[in-house]
Amino acid sequence: MSKSKTEAGNFFEDFKVGQEFAHATPRTLTEADAALNTALFGSRFAVNSSDVFARAIGLPRAPLDDLLVFHVVIAKTVPDISYNAVANLGYAEFRWGALVYPGDTLSARSTVLGLRENSNRQSGVVWVRSIGTNQRGEMVLDYVRWVMVNKRAAEAPVAAPVVPKTAAAVAPADLLVPAGLTLEGYDDGAAGSSDRWEDYEPGERIDHVSGITVEDSDHMFSTRLYQNTARAHFDAYAGKNTRFGRRLAYGGHVISLARALSFNGLANGFRVAAINGGSHVGPTFGGDTIYAWSEILEKAPLTGRDDTGALRVRTIAAKDCPCDSWPGKGADGKYHPAVVLDLDYWLLIPR
Amino acid sequence: MSKSKTEAGNFFEDFKVGQEFAHATPRTLTEADAALNTALFGSRFAVNSSDVFARAIGLPRAPLDDLLVFHVVIAKTVPDISYNAVANLGYAEFRWGALVYPGDTLSARSTVLGLRENSNRQSGVVWVRSIGTNQRGEMVLDYVRWVMVNKRAAEAPVAAPVVPKTAAAVAPADLLVPAGLTLEGYDDGAAGSSDRWEDYEPGERIDHVSGITVEDSDHMFSTRLYQNTARAHFDAYAGKNTRFGRRLAYGGHVISLARALSFNGLANGFRVAAINGGSHVGPTFGGDTIYAWSEILEKAPLTGRDDTGALRVRTIAAKDCPCDSWPGKGADGKYHPAVVLDLDYWLLIPR
Amino acid sequence: MSKSKTEAGNFFEDFKVGQEFAHATPRTLTEADAALNTALFGSRFAVNSSDVFARAIGLPRAPLDDLLVFHVVIAKTVPDISYNAVANLGYAEFRWGALVYPGDTLSARSTVLGLRENSNRQSGVVWVRSIGTNQRGEMVLDYVRWVMVNKRAAEAPVAAPVVPKTAAAVAPADLLVPAGLTLEGYDDGAAGSSDRWEDYEPGERIDHVSGITVEDSDHMFSTRLYQNTARAHFDAYAGKNTRFGRRLAYGGHVISLARALSFNGLANGFRVAAINGGSHVGPTFGGDTIYAWSEILEKAPLTGRDDTGALRVRTIAAKDCPCDSWPGKGADGKYHPAVVLDLDYWLLIPR
Repeated sequence: MSKSKTEAGNFFEDFKVGQEFAHATPRTLTEADAALNTALFGSRFAVNSSDVFARAIGLPRAPLDDLLVFHVVIAKTVPDISYNAVANLGYAEFRWGALVYPGDTLSARSTVLGLRENSNRQSGVVWVRSIGTNQRGEMVLDYVRWVMVNKRAAEAPVAAPVVPKTAAAVAPADLLVPAGLTLEGYDDGAAGSSDRWEDYEPGERIDHVSGITVEDSDHMFSTRLYQNTARAHFDAYAGKNTRFGRRLAYGGHVISLARALSFNGLANGFRVAAINGGSHVGPTFGGDTIYAWSEILEKAPLTGRDDTGALRVRTIAAKDCPCDSWPGKGADGKYHPAVVLDLDYWLLIPR
Repeated sequence: MSKSKTEAGNFFEDFKVGQEFAHATPRTLTEADAALNTALFGSRFAVNSSDVFARAIGLPRAPLDDLLVFHVVIAKTVPDISYNAVANLGYAEFRWGALVYPGDTLSARSTVLGLRENSNRQSGVVWVRSIGTNQRGEMVLDYVRWVMVNKRAAEAPVAAPVVPKTAAAVAPADLLVPAGLTLEGYDDGAAGSSDRWEDYEPGERIDHVSGITVEDSDHMFSTRLYQNTARAHFDAYAGKNTRFGRRLAYGGHVISLARALSFNGLANGFRVAAINGGSHVGPTFGGDTIYAWSEILEKAPLTGRDDTGALRVRTIAAKDCPCDSWPGKGADGKYHPAVVLDLDYWLLIPR
Repeated sequence: MSKSKTEAGNFFEDFKVGQEFAHATPRTLTEADAALNTALFGSRFAVNSSDVFARAIGLPRAPLDDLLVFHVVIAKTVPDISYNAVANLGYAEFRWGALVYPGDTLSARSTVLGLRENSNRQSGVVWVRSIGTNQRGEMVLDYVRWVMVNKRAAEAPVAAPVVPKTAAAVAPADLLVPAGLTLEGYDDGAAGSSDRWEDYEPGERIDHVSGITVEDSDHMFSTRLYQNTARAHFDAYAGKNTRFGRRLAYGGHVISLARALSFNGLANGFRVAAINGGSHVGPTFGGDTIYAWSEILEKAPLTGRDDTGALRVRTIAAKDCPCDSWPGKGADGKYHPAVVLDLDYWLLIPR
């Protein structure tokens, strides 16, 4: 009878293409999540910091940080999708929808898009589309993620592989501009920079200068806040017997740190609208100091809007390595050993 | 004149049976306390996480975590009752009353029920009944606690011993079901489990599987949040000269971790209604990883309610010891050395 | 093109007397900031803890901690004023104005009052007056601060020195009593002490007894919450190459700890009304345990109020040194090596 009530998560052979999950634990986000996002990452984007600033651009109040929404939604999918995951492999078609405000309650559901067993039969890749919604059913985040998930038993038979096609990047025409946004009232001084859409050029590189050290207490705090149950982050005792010999920081914690650091150079990038792709290149541990730099990949106007444009940005985070040396991917296709994150995304920025 | 303004707490000889205390520092709890409870322990019980879920079962919004209420109330009693305590010895007749919501202001008062000097005359046992109330005077928590408190002077005379009788357990008929609760709208999917009252049987054991590492920063953070002033938790410098040679985590921090871990197996146990007894079996320090397992001790229907029942649960927490080995009390009456908490309590759970 | 978007802060030769700054990133403070202030420092002043207590003395609800307002305002000035500072030298004419409540949005602006190059030409002293305001433009904090700021280039020419005169202390007549305050309803029991204005005497010393250990995670958490970007606090990697060989706790973190510790002896000092002067005597690092003691310097009645008076207090904080030995400044003018803070300020306290 023991363990019968305990969820052990799904293994690779438990998934079926087309299978749907309504994930547990709806979560009402509040002003406290906003404050904690500031305290954990030091983010300074004015739109998320000030109700006065937000109202001046047509919003009812300061919306919650876009990446916070990501962390909360993805965490809900863990018990069903990635509790037995070996690695997070990629993201695609990753778009934010309705803004999320204090008081909103987020839920998440997922559909299995594809499955492919690995040749060693120990594990396989699972593709899911996950959708986060608010209490009115409006989409707040929609993305495809693929993860490598262990099999319970290597010999378990599985169906023929199904590998979904995903877009290489989110097209600018598919970016969603939050309803009600009116940028005439956007105050560069309060936002901390006069650099707008016109001031950035593809190929431009920006060193975000500062570094922030991650403590084990910090990344566990954020990951618990999101109700993420991925075991690798919380258990120093079990961590001793992993290949890293210790706990691993949640990759999303590093994404949020990189975003917060990017304020210095991208202060007017007020909304993360989409992720084109991303890779957690290396592990981050308590005690590591995270730095970041960005490259402007592309600029796109937005249909029907002359007050805001989109910047496609690649942000690289590195640990214990200031980014004025631009650590990245070498000519041999290998990353500099300090790189922990390579993220390709779209920002909305006033024109 | 120095020190004259400083509270040094009461010593054993300062207490009198029948003495009453109105404890200082009323505390308004807010949405932030809810978020911090999630961030500190990773709790995932849907009723405390989602206003939408809470409204579906007849509540005005998500109530605050029951153990948070416990931590806040007990903290208020520390300066008057246990500032000079050597050890927390036990709890009895421990019941929760009105649910606590963001915006409610909690106060606490205590009455001394009993006193018994130890034979070495260095200290004695103090029994108090403490009651936490909200701003309308409604009881939110009512319990008896006994602690061993130092004497200021061993030779100080004390009155004849008075040892109160306390109930061995809270009777099911005495459990308080929150007003307004209507469980037809209880959503197992959102709550994360389809196991209800009928699915549990006395004698059943549940390993809660995951572990969470406690950092010194974490337990100090929670204990300061509750305005608990017990010195052993905050002072690494003085801690060096204690028998442990270091700071000690607040025992309540471990209780909340065990409760959060118990979600995996007891996800529908939406309300801690009472504690029958509990023991902080061993100390927890920064760096320890807490695991937990539970045994179902008893099932009880609740008078006049066919939608919810009570489960009497014993949860044991152990440090640096995964609980699939069920560490507990041996045939010799001694605990496994990894055990840090043995808690006997009543949960409300939908039928 | 690289780095062109990145703010590097102002160097000494960039400042001009009379120059004005409207600092970036307005910040809406919420109930979460109140809870985090409690969790970070363990503060127990009833007026900031309980809406019920606050309403009983004529306020609409519990105002936010005075020092929290200080931390948020001063943090806004960092990118423009002290990003390249070597040291924080002093404060003067430092007064709090309107109380700040959850929902208020704070902004800050500064004016350069004086400039004096150091004889080594490597750096110079910058005096600024900074004013924090709420969303209605009301002053919440007004102070003069002077900091030593590096030059970008030692050889850069600078203007003749201008050294402003600042008051040695804030006169009692200049202290601002919050509007609406009516102290008849002030409840000593709830506040935790019966010692009022009449009970303190100049020369009286109070040991605040308890100590609190600062972890690196704690001081980084608070400093990010305030959106303070001073690099010395966050970067363990760069910290290795500083004269301290490690990260440095934000001096304001120590001020808030000392204030929280001072509750034990000054529980009714419900409002920090002004700072006369202060010095961060020594650095604080993760792992240090902070203790504090205070001396009553002066008592002053307040014009037109017989329900509240002012106490001028000097609080000294020391690390790894319990303060029953009153560590301070010796006859030789040198501080005891354990001292980290010497703060001279005015408290409002009921009569």
